[in-house]
Amino acid sequence: MIIDVHGHVSAPSELYAYKAGLLSHRGAHGRGGAGISDDQLRAALEAPNPSFGNQSHLAHLDEAGVDLQLISPRPYQMMHSESPAKLVEWFTAETNDVIARVCALVPGRFRGIAGLPQSMERSPADWVAELRRCVQELGFVGATFNPDPYEGTQQPPNLGDRFWYPVWEALCELDVPALIHSAGCRAPARETYSLHFIQEETLAVVGLLNSGVLTDFPDLKIIVSHGGGAIPYQRGRFQPGAIRGGGRFEDRLRRLYYDTCLYTQDSIELLLRAVGVDRCLFGTEKPGTGSVRDPGTGRWIDDIHHLITDIDWLTAGERKQLMETNARELFRL
Amino acid sequence: MIIDVHGHVSAPSELYAYKAGLLSHRGAHGRGGAGISDDQLRAALEAPNPSFGNQSHLAHLDEAGVDLQLISPRPYQMMHSESPAKLVEWFTAETNDVIARVCALVPGRFRGIAGLPQSMERSPADWVAELRRCVQELGFVGATFNPDPYEGTQQPPNLGDRFWYPVWEALCELDVPALIHSAGCRAPARETYSLHFIQEETLAVVGLLNSGVLTDFPDLKIIVSHGGGAIPYQRGRFQPGAIRGGGRFEDRLRRLYYDTCLYTQDSIELLLRAVGVDRCLFGTEKPGTGSVRDPGTGRWIDDIHHLITDIDWLTAGERKQLMETNARELFRL
Amino acid sequence: MIIDVHGHVSAPSELYAYKAGLLSHRGAHGRGGAGISDDQLRAALEAPNPSFGNQSHLAHLDEAGVDLQLISPRPYQMMHSESPAKLVEWFTAETNDVIARVCALVPGRFRGIAGLPQSMERSPADWVAELRRCVQELGFVGATFNPDPYEGTQQPPNLGDRFWYPVWEALCELDVPALIHSAGCRAPARETYSLHFIQEETLAVVGLLNSGVLTDFPDLKIIVSHGGGAIPYQRGRFQPGAIRGGGRFEDRLRRLYYDTCLYTQDSIELLLRAVGVDRCLFGTEKPGTGSVRDPGTGRWIDDIHHLITDIDWLTAGERKQLMETNARELFRL
Amino acid sequence: MIIDVHGHVSAPSELYAYKAGLLSHRGAHGRGGAGISDDQLRAALEAPNPSFGNQSHLAHLDEAGVDLQLISPRPYQMMHSESPAKLVEWFTAETNDVIARVCALVPGRFRGIAGLPQSMERSPADWVAELRRCVQELGFVGATFNPDPYEGTQQPPNLGDRFWYPVWEALCELDVPALIHSAGCRAPARETYSLHFIQEETLAVVGLLNSGVLTDFPDLKIIVSHGGGAIPYQRGRFQPGAIRGGGRFEDRLRRLYYDTCLYTQDSIELLLRAVGVDRCLFGTEKPGTGSVRDPGTGRWIDDIHHLITDIDWLTAGERKQLMETNARELFRL
Amino acid sequence: MIIDVHGHVSAPSELYAYKAGLLSHRGAHGRGGAGISDDQLRAALEAPNPSFGNQSHLAHLDEAGVDLQLISPRPYQMMHSESPAKLVEWFTAETNDVIARVCALVPGRFRGIAGLPQSMERSPADWVAELRRCVQELGFVGATFNPDPYEGTQQPPNLGDRFWYPVWEALCELDVPALIHSAGCRAPARETYSLHFIQEETLAVVGLLNSGVLTDFPDLKIIVSHGGGAIPYQRGRFQPGAIRGGGRFEDRLRRLYYDTCLYTQDSIELLLRAVGVDRCLFGTEKPGTGSVRDPGTGRWIDDIHHLITDIDWLTAGERKQLMETNARELFRL
Amino acid sequence: MIIDVHGHVSAPSELYAYKAGLLSHRGAHGRGGAGISDDQLRAALEAPNPSFGNQSHLAHLDEAGVDLQLISPRPYQMMHSESPAKLVEWFTAETNDVIARVCALVPGRFRGIAGLPQSMERSPADWVAELRRCVQELGFVGATFNPDPYEGTQQPPNLGDRFWYPVWEALCELDVPALIHSAGCRAPARETYSLHFIQEETLAVVGLLNSGVLTDFPDLKIIVSHGGGAIPYQRGRFQPGAIRGGGRFEDRLRRLYYDTCLYTQDSIELLLRAVGVDRCLFGTEKPGTGSVRDPGTGRWIDDIHHLITDIDWLTAGERKQLMETNARELFRL
Repeated sequence: MIIDVHGHVSAPSELYAYKAGLLSHRGAHGRGGAGISDDQLRAALEAPNPSFGNQSHLAHLDEAGVDLQLISPRPYQMMHSESPAKLVEWFTAETNDVIARVCALVPGRFRGIAGLPQSMERSPADWVAELRRCVQELGFVGATFNPDPYEGTQQPPNLGDRFWYPVWEALCELDVPALIHSAGCRAPARETYSLHFIQEETLAVVGLLNSGVLTDFPDLKIIVSHGGGAIPYQRGRFQPGAIRGGGRFEDRLRRLYYDTCLYTQDSIELLLRAVGVDRCLFGTEKPGTGSVRDPGTGRWIDDIHHLITDIDWLTAGERKQLMETNARELFRL
Repeated sequence: MIIDVHGHVSAPSELYAYKAGLLSHRGAHGRGGAGISDDQLRAALEAPNPSFGNQSHLAHLDEAGVDLQLISPRPYQMMHSESPAKLVEWFTAETNDVIARVCALVPGRFRGIAGLPQSMERSPADWVAELRRCVQELGFVGATFNPDPYEGTQQPPNLGDRFWYPVWEALCELDVPALIHSAGCRAPARETYSLHFIQEETLAVVGLLNSGVLTDFPDLKIIVSHGGGAIPYQRGRFQPGAIRGGGRFEDRLRRLYYDTCLYTQDSIELLLRAVGVDRCLFGTEKPGTGSVRDPGTGRWIDDIHHLITDIDWLTAGERKQLMETNARELFRL
Repeated sequence: MIIDVHGHVSAPSELYAYKAGLLSHRGAHGRGGAGISDDQLRAALEAPNPSFGNQSHLAHLDEAGVDLQLISPRPYQMMHSESPAKLVEWFTAETNDVIARVCALVPGRFRGIAGLPQSMERSPADWVAELRRCVQELGFVGATFNPDPYEGTQQPPNLGDRFWYPVWEALCELDVPALIHSAGCRAPARETYSLHFIQEETLAVVGLLNSGVLTDFPDLKIIVSHGGGAIPYQRGRFQPGAIRGGGRFEDRLRRLYYDTCLYTQDSIELLLRAVGVDRCLFGTEKPGTGSVRDPGTGRWIDDIHHLITDIDWLTAGERKQLMETNARELFRL
Repeated sequence: MIIDVHGHVSAPSELYAYKAGLLSHRGAHGRGGAGISDDQLRAALEAPNPSFGNQSHLAHLDEAGVDLQLISPRPYQMMHSESPAKLVEWFTAETNDVIARVCALVPGRFRGIAGLPQSMERSPADWVAELRRCVQELGFVGATFNPDPYEGTQQPPNLGDRFWYPVWEALCELDVPALIHSAGCRAPARETYSLHFIQEETLAVVGLLNSGVLTDFPDLKIIVSHGGGAIPYQRGRFQPGAIRGGGRFEDRLRRLYYDTCLYTQDSIELLLRAVGVDRCLFGTEKPGTGSVRDPGTGRWIDDIHHLITDIDWLTAGERKQLMETNARELFRL
Repeated sequence: MIIDVHGHVSAPSELYAYKAGLLSHRGAHGRGGAGISDDQLRAALEAPNPSFGNQSHLAHLDEAGVDLQLISPRPYQMMHSESPAKLVEWFTAETNDVIARVCALVPGRFRGIAGLPQSMERSPADWVAELRRCVQELGFVGATFNPDPYEGTQQPPNLGDRFWYPVWEALCELDVPALIHSAGCRAPARETYSLHFIQEETLAVVGLLNSGVLTDFPDLKIIVSHGGGAIPYQRGRFQPGAIRGGGRFEDRLRRLYYDTCLYTQDSIELLLRAVGVDRCLFGTEKPGTGSVRDPGTGRWIDDIHHLITDIDWLTAGERKQLMETNARELFRL
Repeated sequence: MIIDVHGHVSAPSELYAYKAGLLSHRGAHGRGGAGISDDQLRAALEAPNPSFGNQSHLAHLDEAGVDLQLISPRPYQMMHSESPAKLVEWFTAETNDVIARVCALVPGRFRGIAGLPQSMERSPADWVAELRRCVQELGFVGATFNPDPYEGTQQPPNLGDRFWYPVWEALCELDVPALIHSAGCRAPARETYSLHFIQEETLAVVGLLNSGVLTDFPDLKIIVSHGGGAIPYQRGRFQPGAIRGGGRFEDRLRRLYYDTCLYTQDSIELLLRAVGVDRCLFGTEKPGTGSVRDPGTGRWIDDIHHLITDIDWLTAGERKQLMETNARELFRL
């Protein structure tokens, strides 16, 4: 069985037209709703999608052999930096509702990962209600967490700061993992949202490992998307500090989890060796940015299962850990 | 024949999902497109619309006897204050293209009024290219003009300022009128986009009349939406200044045009008397905010044609002027 | 008997020279005082005034048949946005004192309406002491209230916000009405102080009606100056929302009072019909902006009593209500 | 004969009421005027003034034996930091006109020193027109110059900066001296306007002496008010730098002129010794801040002529230089 | 015996290289230390110093006959405006430690005056721990106090503000005096750090005397460096206000102490006469800015002992007070 | 022969004490100089250094077999964000001079890489003079280039922006390579300077590859420090975009050069495979952050030569390319 921990929901245009409306009336029309029918939901999953190589979400999963995918909101749509906060709250709830309906519509194929309404006009303690709703009422098994709710418009507190503690507390209390994944990125930041993912993951790993968070929350389960940003590749840079502190950086690194959402085999291998197979989870972000066929190989760029299959030094046990067991344990699936 | 100069296009969800995407990737995915089919376009015109009392755009026009409607983008969706400027440019062009297709799809029923890509990161001189494209290539007959492209986030130059002259120049050169109509409204402004329309129209009338614009551009044709904001009602307040300057305020007021988009008969009567029937144009913004049935009368709130019919002191000639001839002459229809 | 609820004090130059001094030394000279003699006070009421068509304040009232005028500070002089706050406090108190002395100097002709020291460097709760002093010690019968103490330099909270509650509480406790009337207007706002009055009144009406203020303070008596800004004329625009909420906008409008300070008869008629004669009070702002003779009619522009006399559909009872009884009841005169 | 180079005009309340009006309408009423009669002007000079120990301006001069006083605007009233710039321009011109009328009203007793409309919304090159008007049309003999037109609200360029060169050029071309004298002082600056004078004079002396200004404008004549701020007293502090540069600081200091507006004899003596009698001019700022009787001596605090008389080491020739000749030469009287 | 209350430590380059490192890594390398050996410390005191006329610190003291010098950190190095606060804290402590070691290294020659870690990211209450450490553990006898920890980058609270009270409280509790002495000065301020000293001292004297500080803390002992900035020279300016308040400014001035760090004899004489010999303390800032030989006299500019010797009207008793007894009493030496 | 392209000068404390002084007086003392003797320079190279494992710079090079090291300023000391600009200019020149003297002192062992005075208060065109001086007068062979001269305090233009073109032009004209290497990092940025290196390198690679820089400057030679930040590891993420654009990302990557300054063998292997051996240069940053012995292996963390030796799949020719020839060709050594 293959479990993919890093998928994003494919939703109909109506969800995003609803978002566009919120951004236009800024709440003057009230919350309203996207008014999505089950047929529209199903079509969004089953119809060939021009953004994803003209193949449908479900066909992508079938082709890759993914049995169960954990799906969260499309991060770059989450608009955490928009104002007033209620827009973020309404749209996040609407999206989580869509995810719950998708899970119900295709039984056994999906589990929900919640988006949080991370408006900085509210306190992190306020974001937690939606997390509770998703886990306790909608049956979700985790949440995404954006370390930069300002989306590049200004600098948030470092991830090691006590500012974020209410989220860690709630995650521990509900016993669900968080997937670190930033959302959009705007000026004056210099990068696209996609490169911002990497930059924020790099900052997140160092911010967490150099702080008291993992000591204060020993049960906190954090998965860093996209193989941990720059850190596994640059990990040697942090060894001198760790040695001076009387430890080793590889031990610190293993306090977190990482998904395999990297599109080259050597990078995945480096990750597995740097942090250990037991700290890695199969994740594809499929269908998504990588759903383009490589003309050289004919494969989809995001065919990460092929890249893993091609790693000859993995044992069968490790492969199963990576593709299934780690996720099963971490998410209690 | 009835010509309604103030209509906004009814477009499918895909247009607004496209906008939501632009705001999410901030241009990183390139311009792309909304990918709207003719069927979707037609459905947006013909299907009962829950936002508009469950009646379709065309049914609304039919019921009101509107033969020809001038349609522009939905103002509150125009997002002039978004960044970077290319988002505004792409979405404006995409919307204008949808308008052109709608005009072609239902021949004789619609004419286009252009939206302009009024990003303040660009100069007004840069906005004009899209105006030219719409008039010269798409056959549009006018444009909307937003006096507050900052959408409430900061104060723009007064409408009498030379800052805006490139737009006046282009309008005169192309010989098309502009319809003053603001777009969205955001914090820290205190009002909804809908009340912002009124506030901006009030400022626009005074800004234009107290400046050299109408002297410097004697051929400029400006229509102020929603009956001129507060000014016709408050016009007595400006009489003392006009008298001190050796004139009368009612003469100044008649340098502009006004639409009848007011939902009470006494207001329309006041407007007609204040500025003259020859300065007024039939406009309904239908279907739109006013497409709700009044439980007292059973009429749609935006049934402005009924309100005008009920004005007993209008002559048949005046009525025709108002409902047709003024628009025909001003827009050269 | 005619009661004019909207008059502003005519004070000698010394009051404004005092203000100029405060703005120059910013408090370094201490509070001091304007040092106005009774002769100077009397001259300011009785001498022909070049700003008001070379006719004195009292002559204006006599000519218009005003028996009793409620007088408040000249709003555009109130300088709420100046710093430090004590300047605002000192000048407001000095002005209120002048008003009290004027009332005493011409017994039976005037009653005082307090200015409040609305510096945003203080809390609204701090403004209330001066209101109490004016009502309890000086015998004033109401207060002016400026919804924009920033005077156009930045955006204050919406009038529906709890920020302003301490003022509403004190007004209810003292059982006196407030006259909504903004003060000065500075850059970056685009309008003169006079147009700012209208814009702020428009915002004030909507801000109050769309909030819980009138529910939380059922005894609050608010009069909106200048006929309510744009709202009576634009009231149809708010009907759809009211209907969706299960009511009618005309009922909401009647929760407030409006003065007749509009200089055209049709506008006054529209106002009376829109909100009801029982919600309107005779107010002229005389002598003031409108104290210019119309060369066409020979009347003063602010001869609002003539405009009302010319409304043929008002009954004698309604006329009395408008010119006297409503004010008498509201202000407990 | 005694010439006092540092006097400020005593103007009637109407001038400051006019200023208060400008600050209230921010230009919306147009320039208008203070409407001051000759009687009012004369009263302002001849009537006992409560701000100045209940003695009139002329009586103060008579008592001190001042034959000729150079009068400029009251600095703390000059409001250079107010916006828009036209307010500053209008009020400055109105004040200069009052000065010219005072000079004409009491022939031979006064000569005018111009105020400049130093709004930072304009360029220094724009201020110069008023200087020209005052010198060429009104017969003024010099100008005041404020090194901090922001009046404490932000930091202007250093006085050595090329920013100010247009003023130096015009002063040289017209061959008139400038009296360095700041105007008001507002938050966030921590000092009153009066202490700000001292701080700005300290900065001005160092700013000029450490720059190329006096080399680039060898004919520039600058008088620093109030005895040069802190510098004569602190001059030793600048000797090491001067010595390192191959000169002596006392020689640099003598490139400027200083008035004697200090209210203690030892300070005046220190000044005379530090910069030389030939660099000092008799100046009293009388009547003004110092027009209070010292209960110990019975003298007015600003009786600087007594302080100078009491200096026993001055020769008759030096005394005459100080009280008359230096001023006569510098101002070409 | 001669006691010099105003000296600054001469420290080896390593201390400032340590500071440069802190500013480069901003704390990333941890606190570390300057790693200064006793030999380096001794060399910094005994080796001829090119910054100080190629004479060593101790030779300067010997030549001037200074028996005991109170030494504090070099003010312009104190970097109070740098961020984060821990840099200021670490560097201040390191510098105070160097001072303590210098005191121990040359027994009987020096006593320590503490620098405080005046970061505005912390509260004044947080600065006090280092004061306690220096007095209670290192045996220091006083502290320097910078009234502008922003170092010219923005305006701090006035020195009379309650903001600073925690420092006054601690000084009283520990019964040690504070020497007012600003630190660096940066843009947008217009002056060098050295002129900033004078400006800040001027503000400090007025700020303290015009506030309740000296009433609230009757035992507070404040010494103003450099002879009190501008105030003794400009003291007449403050007499009218004092007289109006029923006192005399010279009495107020005597609530503070002043050092003699002025490099001209007449200035020192003026100071002594203005505030009284009993309020003055011998202070030289030697070696420092003034350690340049005057080519005219051959003396060091900072040879203040010569200037005092040259004052012929001082009695032997006064001279001893000034050079020794006042310091002994104030600092309890 | 081994050439290390990434070394930083080891300078005596006096250089950094000089920097500390500049930051304290902000230029008020003039440029001055660090006053470093040849003995001090030599000691800085030859004495055991506690920051580098108590081994000297030269001993580190000897032990690692480095024959020639290209040395540039210590990046974290470069203070590009300090103000005024002349501080940056003076310190940069002083540091480059030290580098030139070090090169001369140990003939044949070092070549200079220039620091540029990258103050954003100047234009990049102004930085180029120092580059010219270093190459043409001091014989330097390249330059470091900081893509974030704001050092984390605000966002600079993207590296693809035309803003930076003057630097590229000068590099091409002088035909020397630039080593991308950021300097310090301050709040509000969340990372240390060391992690900032990685973040800025990530941005730099994408900024350059997604712009027209390498087309506009086909001869530009850019080396990205620390193995290109995150990009080689994350390169798969950029493949879909490249494929859509009709190319492959690995070809784009090969337009730049990368050093091997990574402290784990697998990372270096990944780099070599991702970009090709011909695009990589041996670089150690030795002695520096990595000069700590790994207790597990006994090796210095920055013993990159060992890591490369351990890569078994490199041919002798490739090894020579990497360790010598590529550098020789790129830098024309």
